Amino acid sequence: MNSTVYVDNNATTAVAPEVTEAMLPYFTEHWGNPSSMHTFGGHVKRALDAAREKVAALIGAEHPSEIIFTSCGSESNNMAILGAVDAMGGHPHVITTRVEHAAVLGPCHYLEDKGFRVSTLDVDEKGRLDIERIREESMAGKKTVASIMWANNETGVIFPVPEVGAVIKEGGGIYHTDAVQVAGKLPVNVKEIPVDLLSISGHKLHAPKGIGALYVRRGTKLTPQIMGGHQERGRRAGTENTPYIVGLGKACELAMQTMDKDAAHERRLRDRLEAGILATCKGARVNGDTEHRLPNTTNISFEYVEGEAILLMLDDVGICASTGSACASGSLEPSHVLRAMDVPRALLHGSIRFSLSRYNTDADIDDVLEKLPVIIDRLRELSPFVKD
Amino acid sequence: MNSTVYVDNNATTAVAPEVTEAMLPYFTEHWGNPSSMHTFGGHVKRALDAAREKVAALIGAEHPSEIIFTSCGSESNNMAILGAVDAMGGHPHVITTRVEHAAVLGPCHYLEDKGFRVSTLDVDEKGRLDIERIREESMAGKKTVASIMWANNETGVIFPVPEVGAVIKEGGGIYHTDAVQVAGKLPVNVKEIPVDLLSISGHKLHAPKGIGALYVRRGTKLTPQIMGGHQERGRRAGTENTPYIVGLGKACELAMQTMDKDAAHERRLRDRLEAGILATCKGARVNGDTEHRLPNTTNISFEYVEGEAILLMLDDVGICASTGSACASGSLEPSHVLRAMDVPRALLHGSIRFSLSRYNTDADIDDVLEKLPVIIDRLRELSPFVKD
Repeated sequence: MNSTVYVDNNATTAVAPEVTEAMLPYFTEHWGNPSSMHTFGGHVKRALDAAREKVAALIGAEHPSEIIFTSCGSESNNMAILGAVDAMGGHPHVITTRVEHAAVLGPCHYLEDKGFRVSTLDVDEKGRLDIERIREESMAGKKTVASIMWANNETGVIFPVPEVGAVIKEGGGIYHTDAVQVAGKLPVNVKEIPVDLLSISGHKLHAPKGIGALYVRRGTKLTPQIMGGHQERGRRAGTENTPYIVGLGKACELAMQTMDKDAAHERRLRDRLEAGILATCKGARVNGDTEHRLPNTTNISFEYVEGEAILLMLDDVGICASTGSACASGSLEPSHVLRAMDVPRALLHGSIRFSLSRYNTDADIDDVLEKLPVIIDRLRELSPFVKD
Repeated sequence: MNSTVYVDNNATTAVAPEVTEAMLPYFTEHWGNPSSMHTFGGHVKRALDAAREKVAALIGAEHPSEIIFTSCGSESNNMAILGAVDAMGGHPHVITTRVEHAAVLGPCHYLEDKGFRVSTLDVDEKGRLDIERIREESMAGKKTVASIMWANNETGVIFPVPEVGAVIKEGGGIYHTDAVQVAGKLPVNVKEIPVDLLSISGHKLHAPKGIGALYVRRGTKLTPQIMGGHQERGRRAGTENTPYIVGLGKACELAMQTMDKDAAHERRLRDRLEAGILATCKGARVNGDTEHRLPNTTNISFEYVEGEAILLMLDDVGICASTGSACASGSLEPSHVLRAMDVPRALLHGSIRFSLSRYNTDADIDDVLEKLPVIIDRLRELSPFVKD
């Protein structure tokens, strides 16, 4: 990463050196199968248990057994929604929002195609939910499974999860939240919020890509989505990915230790970046509710220019950012999140997400603030729509 | 692993040092998201493509795009069966066998509970299939999805996959085979065998636990089981586990280079081990068809003694083996595979699987042959059933 400025941490984060170090022995020495009856496997089993406790601690879970290890946040989201719907039986009503991650909208669309009633709720122009609408939907009589995210990956907008959960539970529903962008960035305490299922992704908090977790509150019925062996207490078959589970445990431990400091650091850098861009780039506007927002994220639209052009020119000068979700990149469709927020046409195609991590520095921000205004000026010169 | 003899390679294998070395840079340097538009992610994308080609080459796939990366063999099996059944629609008839891995029987039982017709075929006392029974089932009129394994994980017995596939395709069905125990051990060429879907597990061929692949022949309809992002051409959402994918590619490349030599080496050691045990341990009998068998596996029953007792005493002297599938360990039920083979009661509870890898040596075999007969003698002395 020499001379590269990486401000795309909502897409993926660097593996923390401490995490790599913690994982290594599980490749080279302790590669036993934790399900094996011999001592060689038994050692690995104890490492799994310790990691499960660390993940449980990060989110305040009462029992480590409420943590199921998965292969990614997408699996966690699919498992939560499809597993809860199947276990509930009788075609429950599904409630979600227009701004969820693709790994929530995907299974919801699948259920809709199968004839389930799926309510996909709107947000306002700042990306905020209408709690009363959720109440109406969750009180509509039928049993419900709701999947409503904690913080948006593209804008960083934070939903009022305690209130959302209260309303869903009032209606007797099951509540899942995609907390992939929150876990490790802000305090999460499932003891205090009425959530039944909560998704975590390792690679958003400095563990590797390929590991996730699903919190399942005790007593929540869930049909396994990968069936077979007895692993994860029969809730997710497959030989455990022991190195990454150890790595996720380490990443959660690190996050607990440094979260407050990291959040303050990222917030300061983000605010400096945002203020600098708004002051120096013509036609720049921040998307989404800046009052309830992740400390590390800003999503900025640049009027009359194409986001992808900005990205390519940033890439040329060694700056890695994104237009929105990496999971949707490659499609030329404008962001479904910004469309749900009714972002005006002239701004819709020109959005860039900057997302920071504990590893970003003031020098990174200086670099972006030096190079971005030049790029925006050049692109505006080329734009047929700019009138100034 | 100093002073430990590991003969439990069908449960899991050591990560090859070459694989660990190939993966490391993807933790420390190249940790970008392959879906990102910037150069930093693009580099990783090319590594994924190269790994996909290596996996495709190992099994003779025509196009790398026929390989989908998954999180494990269990996911591959579930995805193949549930995905093919869903894509086919209209409640197809499911055909499988009594000796499949739990990750095949699990989804089949699930479908049975949902009202699908599932035929679970018997094997004979050597663990062999009756091709005529498969023909009858696959010709029964309805569309079928068949999942019939290539080689058994407990006994090593190899099914005649080319003939099985021919019969299934004759009936117009979709054929999936769990090749988790074959890939990397014996040549696989999907160009020459009529199989539509084929499962691979990384940790059975010296890649880490937590990575698998599913071969999907072009044109085979499959509903994704993890929905969301566009990864794996929309067939398996979730940010790619880039280090492990690179590792699986490397493991497949190594397997191609050393397979013949490894198989000969393992066969020689296995035959020596087996002959030695039969000559020195009272009441020992090999389970399953020894003519069509993996070169690395022997499953031996010891009359009138408990397999778990043997295991624990082997473990005490530093030898790691198993009674059967690690995925079923912990349950005190006798092996479903041996029960399907009608292994007599006196032998059913006393089976041990020895499974070798390229890393086993003659010294390992010497060690087992020195220590095992003593253990069997001692346990027979304690057994109330032994009459000699």
